Amino acid sequence: MPASPIRKLTPFAEQAKQQGKTVYHLNIGQPDIETPEVMMNAIRRADFKVLAYTQSEGTPSYRAKLAEYYNRAGYNITAEDILVTSGASEAITIAMQTCLDPGDEIIIPEPFYANYNAFAWMSNAVIKPVLSLIENAFALPPVSEFEKLITDKTKALFICNPNNPTGYLYSYEELEELKKLCLKYDLYFFVDEAYREFCYDGNKFHSPMHLEGIEENVIVFDSISKRYSACGARIGCFVTKNKKVLATALKFAQSRLSPGMVDQIAAEAGVETPDSYFEIINKEYTSRRDQLVSSLNRMEGVFCPNPKGAFYVVARFPVDDAEKFCQWMLEEFDYDNQTVMMAPAAGFYSTLGDGVDEIRLAYVLNREDLAKAMICLEKGLLAYPGRKLKGAPSEIVSIH
Amino acid sequence: MPASPIRKLTPFAEQAKQQGKTVYHLNIGQPDIETPEVMMNAIRRADFKVLAYTQSEGTPSYRAKLAEYYNRAGYNITAEDILVTSGASEAITIAMQTCLDPGDEIIIPEPFYANYNAFAWMSNAVIKPVLSLIENAFALPPVSEFEKLITDKTKALFICNPNNPTGYLYSYEELEELKKLCLKYDLYFFVDEAYREFCYDGNKFHSPMHLEGIEENVIVFDSISKRYSACGARIGCFVTKNKKVLATALKFAQSRLSPGMVDQIAAEAGVETPDSYFEIINKEYTSRRDQLVSSLNRMEGVFCPNPKGAFYVVARFPVDDAEKFCQWMLEEFDYDNQTVMMAPAAGFYSTLGDGVDEIRLAYVLNREDLAKAMICLEKGLLAYPGRKLKGAPSEIVSIH
Repeated sequence: MPASPIRKLTPFAEQAKQQGKTVYHLNIGQPDIETPEVMMNAIRRADFKVLAYTQSEGTPSYRAKLAEYYNRAGYNITAEDILVTSGASEAITIAMQTCLDPGDEIIIPEPFYANYNAFAWMSNAVIKPVLSLIENAFALPPVSEFEKLITDKTKALFICNPNNPTGYLYSYEELEELKKLCLKYDLYFFVDEAYREFCYDGNKFHSPMHLEGIEENVIVFDSISKRYSACGARIGCFVTKNKKVLATALKFAQSRLSPGMVDQIAAEAGVETPDSYFEIINKEYTSRRDQLVSSLNRMEGVFCPNPKGAFYVVARFPVDDAEKFCQWMLEEFDYDNQTVMMAPAAGFYSTLGDGVDEIRLAYVLNREDLAKAMICLEKGLLAYPGRKLKGAPSEIVSIH
Repeated sequence: MPASPIRKLTPFAEQAKQQGKTVYHLNIGQPDIETPEVMMNAIRRADFKVLAYTQSEGTPSYRAKLAEYYNRAGYNITAEDILVTSGASEAITIAMQTCLDPGDEIIIPEPFYANYNAFAWMSNAVIKPVLSLIENAFALPPVSEFEKLITDKTKALFICNPNNPTGYLYSYEELEELKKLCLKYDLYFFVDEAYREFCYDGNKFHSPMHLEGIEENVIVFDSISKRYSACGARIGCFVTKNKKVLATALKFAQSRLSPGMVDQIAAEAGVETPDSYFEIINKEYTSRRDQLVSSLNRMEGVFCPNPKGAFYVVARFPVDDAEKFCQWMLEEFDYDNQTVMMAPAAGFYSTLGDGVDEIRLAYVLNREDLAKAMICLEKGLLAYPGRKLKGAPSEIVSIH
């Protein structure tokens, strides 16, 4: 069982805090944005006598409301196409266990959300990665690269859109390319849309649910964690028009009985979140991204693409080993008694040795803290003993 | 993936309701008892701006409180021995995935909680059942029966105490017997204690956590679902003093990020539930059990042991096939426009053909409804075409 790169360094962060350091958390996708008032009110108004199991597939009222939400986005579904899950994590695990036999393969562009490894491990599925390049801002690799990997064990293509960890937003044309491949080889098209509301610079979000003739292949995973800044609600879902898949998935859902009741009440209220909430957030994240990307690119030897979605970037750093660097930042370094926690990107690659000098940063801090974190990071980079500049001999800077 | 026998007949129950029938639910362990006021108040007072992820292992304050709760029961543990999970379901799945390699075996007395099959299936574990007999009120089978099944693939013994589905409460001596076996063969001792507060007639609850010299082997699974009538909170836990097991289990917990935040707040408040709450419930369940067991044993051809714990019984019925009978009760039968939903017990046996004439009934209805349900059931039994009385030719009663 692989350890999560997102929380792997937690003990070092705890230690740093015990030493009195301020730690800026850029490692985890826990937004600081407030949960919509409609959701908090729904929780506070909880009016029932028994905190009971709900239907294994989720409450009828929440599923109906959620169908409305997706239909506003042109998904053309009904409540019956939805299975409510405990976060997108559970939706993905259930999908893998439902659609794949032990040893079956899923093709995923890497870097990818590291916990997919854990879900695959739990499902005896094998992930076959297709490398997307930081130089191309992590765009979809050529479809021919996917095709090379297809065997009789390949059962699904899997993308995360907008992407965690890269922030890449897939275009309609890219989805069309993948659709053709799914139809040609009869593959499931898995798509994790947890960041669907986070698209910047006027770019539109596209889903395989918008494509025609592939209804039986598509399974969407979603979550309210990021959409409503409600990570602690543990409510996700699984959407598909494939009735057979849904029937099997329901058996897995029944084995864990039901999603949380209060959290579903909150989630249902969340669907009424006004558009203004998203407009404000979108503006906020856009400015944070601009700040983060420009700060990073100003640092000597750092390269960071400018992604169009989600709230992450993957950047390349002039270091020998990003994991060592991230640990060092917590263990050894401070600037004005402050330091930064980040997620080494190697854990988001399936191929050993890829991404060793890359780091995922989540821009989930307000701009003031983000600015302080960037100063810390720049100072840390200059002081790090394993610093390596391309074309220059690695300089060793001693610190204490 | 096996279907859950508890919810398998749900479509027939839905249909019956659509036909205007009142359906008494004796199929599922969803108590009608009110959730403690302290928990509901904690939810209503939810005072935070961001519904955030908590620590993967659960919030420090809830784990500390939970340790207090167990220490009042003599477990002698610390907060660090606890991993908070999404229900006991997740705790059991994580334990199987942590402690067993694919193909490894767990010995469980049958009948056992049917979803263990699903958890084992998801963990590539193999369940080896040891038959406990209805004639013995489902007491622990002789340890020699366990020993016969031990191979080099056996990794754990697993009991549920008090037992779901049988209500059987294991004695201290029975636990001692199992302890010896665990030590002799170096096996994990898994115990599901979701019903630990439900012991009747002055009988005391015993846990392997009370036994000496087996600390590294014992893993307790627990849940607040039944304890506080809070099934919809999806909060369970995993308790062990085995640090290595806990470290691996934490990796699984990290992959699904965290348990629900509001539910943990409610669960923490639940630990302050006054003793009087349990005294009232205990009295209520005792009288329900007495009513149910005596009603069942009064029906011709029905046999029901009188269990000391949980809120289930498994009874033997004079029918050809209990699953057919349960379905027939929903599909074909009504008495005064009422019927009963029950869980056929065959799904709680791993051995095919065992328990085909047995049914699990949960006494989670108030006594008035329970009385009505019993009348319905008796009438249904008399009218059922597949009725079979021992020693008598099966009588066919026509209905319409």
